[in-house]
Amino acid sequence: MSETLAARLAAIVGDRHLHADEAIGEHYRIDVSRKYQSRPAFLLKPADTEEVAAIVRLASAEGVSITVVGGQTGTVGSAVPADGGIALSLERMNRIVEIDELSMTMTVEAGCILQLAHEAAEARGALLPLDLGARGSATIGGVIGTNAGGNRVLRWGMMRDMVIGLEAVLADGTIVSSLTKMLKDNAGYNWKHLLVGSEGTLGIVTRAVLRLRPLPTSRQTALVATDSFEDIIAVLRRMEVMVSGRLSSFELMWGDFYTAMSEALLVQRPRAMSAEHGFYALVEAMGGDEEADIAQFERALMALIEDGTIKDAVIAQSDSQREAIWAVREDLAPGLAPLRPFSSYDVSMGVADMPAFVEKARANMAAAYPDATMLFYGHAGDGNLHAIVSIGQMDKTIQHGFDTAVFGAVRDVGGSIAAEHGIGVSRAPFLKWTRSESELALMRTLKDAIDPKHILNPGKLLDAM
Amino acid sequence: MSETLAARLAAIVGDRHLHADEAIGEHYRIDVSRKYQSRPAFLLKPADTEEVAAIVRLASAEGVSITVVGGQTGTVGSAVPADGGIALSLERMNRIVEIDELSMTMTVEAGCILQLAHEAAEARGALLPLDLGARGSATIGGVIGTNAGGNRVLRWGMMRDMVIGLEAVLADGTIVSSLTKMLKDNAGYNWKHLLVGSEGTLGIVTRAVLRLRPLPTSRQTALVATDSFEDIIAVLRRMEVMVSGRLSSFELMWGDFYTAMSEALLVQRPRAMSAEHGFYALVEAMGGDEEADIAQFERALMALIEDGTIKDAVIAQSDSQREAIWAVREDLAPGLAPLRPFSSYDVSMGVADMPAFVEKARANMAAAYPDATMLFYGHAGDGNLHAIVSIGQMDKTIQHGFDTAVFGAVRDVGGSIAAEHGIGVSRAPFLKWTRSESELALMRTLKDAIDPKHILNPGKLLDAM
Repeated sequence: MSETLAARLAAIVGDRHLHADEAIGEHYRIDVSRKYQSRPAFLLKPADTEEVAAIVRLASAEGVSITVVGGQTGTVGSAVPADGGIALSLERMNRIVEIDELSMTMTVEAGCILQLAHEAAEARGALLPLDLGARGSATIGGVIGTNAGGNRVLRWGMMRDMVIGLEAVLADGTIVSSLTKMLKDNAGYNWKHLLVGSEGTLGIVTRAVLRLRPLPTSRQTALVATDSFEDIIAVLRRMEVMVSGRLSSFELMWGDFYTAMSEALLVQRPRAMSAEHGFYALVEAMGGDEEADIAQFERALMALIEDGTIKDAVIAQSDSQREAIWAVREDLAPGLAPLRPFSSYDVSMGVADMPAFVEKARANMAAAYPDATMLFYGHAGDGNLHAIVSIGQMDKTIQHGFDTAVFGAVRDVGGSIAAEHGIGVSRAPFLKWTRSESELALMRTLKDAIDPKHILNPGKLLDAM
Repeated sequence: MSETLAARLAAIVGDRHLHADEAIGEHYRIDVSRKYQSRPAFLLKPADTEEVAAIVRLASAEGVSITVVGGQTGTVGSAVPADGGIALSLERMNRIVEIDELSMTMTVEAGCILQLAHEAAEARGALLPLDLGARGSATIGGVIGTNAGGNRVLRWGMMRDMVIGLEAVLADGTIVSSLTKMLKDNAGYNWKHLLVGSEGTLGIVTRAVLRLRPLPTSRQTALVATDSFEDIIAVLRRMEVMVSGRLSSFELMWGDFYTAMSEALLVQRPRAMSAEHGFYALVEAMGGDEEADIAQFERALMALIEDGTIKDAVIAQSDSQREAIWAVREDLAPGLAPLRPFSSYDVSMGVADMPAFVEKARANMAAAYPDATMLFYGHAGDGNLHAIVSIGQMDKTIQHGFDTAVFGAVRDVGGSIAAEHGIGVSRAPFLKWTRSESELALMRTLKDAIDPKHILNPGKLLDAM
C-alpha cells in the first residue's frame, strides 16, 4: 500500500522530488523552537499548483495528511508534519511571477523567500512592507499562513493587509484562485481572509498577489526614553500626529529589557543611551522628501523633550548609528544567552491594558517562581507585547507554570495569547482562555466544512486543544 | 400560527417595538435604488444583543427569515426584506458604548449612524476614517455588512480595516463575541473578516470595536489636470512618495465627467478649472504639522507642473475653495439630472487595467446602444471606478444590455463587478462572470455550514444567482 502510494506520488512530482522516511532531512521535520520532532512518511517538492492539487487529491482519497513546510521559522510547532503524513515543501515554487508597477502589485509563488521578494520589489522602486527578523528564511506562504506582523505594522499593517489576490488548493484538491490586483472586491464572501492566518489547516496557499508601496527615500530613527508608560504612549500618539502617516515603527522596551540587552552588547558597542530610564522606544519614520522629513521628525521630538515628556533622546545621524539603535531591539542573542533556557511569548491587548497585563503577569510569576526573570518589549502601536521568562531551567512543569502565569494575565485583560506566531501545537491548550466556546464552535464548523477529513495539517490549532 | 408567532416576538421586544404587515413603513421595505419592494410580515426593533439572539432562535425554530435593515443607502437590494419574513431594525441599538483614547478604539452598537460615530470620535480628538456621501443615514452595521470604502480608502483602508472587534448573532441564535481592542490576534480563524462584507447573510452584527486614528489638524486639497491616463497615475504615484503617508484622497475623473458635472454646477459657482483636459484628479492630504504640510504639498505639485506632467492645478486656499473642488465630485445631483433614468456601476480592477476597461466598456456599449452616454470617475488609488450609463430611458432589456456591456468589460480585465456596494439582488446574475465555479462552491460551503436553513437575508448574494 505504502509502496503503491509512493509510486503514485512519484508519478506526480517525479522521483527526484520525492523523499521517504529516513531520507527526509531534519529541516523538514522540526521548527525553530526544536520542541517538536516528527516522522513524516514522504517529503514532496511539487513544481506547480497542478502538482499540488494532484497530491492533495491522492492524499485525500488515501486519507493521508499533508503539512506544508516553509522556512520553519515558527516557534509554536505550526509547520511540523504529522507522523506518517506528507511534508510538502514549495521550495521549487519560488518564482516572482510579475511585478506590476502601475497597479503596484507583485504576483509571487508561495515558496519564495521573503527577503528575495523584498529585493525584487526594491529593484523596481517599490516596497513590500512586511519585515521581520526571519526575512532570510521565512517564505511568502509561511507569512501568509501565520498572518505575520513584524516591525512596520504600525504604518502598513500585517500580511493580511498586503494579500490582495490568492490561489490555494483546498482539502479535496480543488484549486481556488482569485489572483486579482484590485484592493476592493466585495463580490461575495472574502475567503482569502479566512485562509490568511489559518496555519495551513484550511487550504494550501500556492500563489499570491501582494500590494506594494512606493519605496520611501528617507528614513529617520531615534531612541527615546521616558519615566512612565503613560509618557511613552503620549510620545507614540503625538508622533502619530506630528509625523502624520510616516511613522513606521514604535518599538517599546521596558527599562529592564533595555538594560539587559544593551549590557550584553557592550563588548561590541557603547550604549546609545544610559540605562536608567523606565521606558524606551525605538521610533522610526519613512518618507519621500528627505530634508523636510528630517526637520519634521526633529521638530516633533524637540517639542516632546521641551515639555518634559521625553527624558532622553538620540537621533541616528548615519546608517551605522541607526544600526546601533536597532541592535538593542533586534540583536537579542547576546542578551538572551544568560537566560537560556527561557520561554518567549507573543501576546496582544489594547494599548491601555498593557501596564495591567505586565503587573498581573509579574504577580502571577512571583507567586509561582519568585526568582523568575521577566523582560517585556514589543510593538506598542499594535498592542503586541513580547515577554521573555526564565528561571535558568526548564521542564514540562516549569513550562506549564510559565504559560499559566502569562496567559492568565492575558485572559484577565481580554487580550490574545497569539499576536503573531499563531497557535500551532504549544498554544492550543490555552486557546479557550481567550476565545469563547461559541467562537471555537464557529471555528470548528468552518474547519469541518472546508476540510471534513481533517487531512490538512492535523494535530495543530483546534485539533491540538 | 402567525398570531402566535407575533405574540411570541412581541414578548421578546415588547408590543411597542413590533410592527406587522401594513403598519411597516416604506423605509423598511425599500432601498435607495427604489427597484425592490417587499412585504415583510414583521418589523422588530430589539433593545440589545440578547433580544436579537432570542428573535433569531425563534425565527430559526419557525423557519422564518430575517433581514437586517439599516440606513437603506445601498443600491443593489442587499437590505430589502424577504416577503413574509422579519425586518430587523437595530435603530434602538445605537449607542456609542466607549471611546478608549489610549488604545484608540471606539466600541459602538450596530444601529449607530456613521456621522454620529464620526462626531463622537472628533469630540475626543480622534478620527474614524471611513467617510462616504451617505454618512448621515448609513449605519455602522450597514457599512460593516457591505465593507464600505468611500473617499479615504487610499490612506486608511476600507471598513474591514477598521473593525478590530466584533459581536454577532449567528443563524441559530448563538452570540459570538470578540469585542477586543487589539490590532493583532492570530489565535484561530478570523471569523470577523468572514462576516464583514457578507451582506447580512452569515450573521447579524450587533456591536463592533473600531480602530480610531489621531485627528489630523491640517488638510490640503487640490484639483489637477493631465492630458493622459498615464500622467494622472504618475501624479498619484509621485504624490504617494512626496507627501508620504499623508495622501488621503485621489479622486479620478475622466474629462467628460468633469465637463458634465462642473457644467451643471455653473449656476451655483464658476468652474474651478477649465474643462478642456483629458483627466482630472481631486488630490487631498492630511497631517498634523500645518505649515510644513502645506509647503510639502505645494512643493510636490510644483515639481509635477514644472516637468509638464500636470497641465493645470488649483490649490484650495480656504474651506470654501475646498468645498468648491469637492462639489464637482460629490454634488452630483445637478449633473446627473439630465441623464435620468441612468444606471450606475461600482467596479474595480488593477489600476493598470483601467484604460482597457473603459475602452472595452465603451466599445461594448457602442455596439449595443450607439447613443449612450458613459461617464467614468472613481477612487484611482483603490482601483475602484464608478460608471454612469444612460440613453434617456430604462427598462429590463436596456438594464440587462447595460449590465452586459459593463460587466463584460470587467470580466475581460479580470476585475470585480462589486467594489463597494456588494452583490445584493441586482448584481447576483453576474457574479459568476468574475468568480470561478470553485470560488462560488467554497462560498456555498461556507453559507451552508454557518446558516444551513438559509434564514439570514435570503434571496440575496448566492441565493439570488
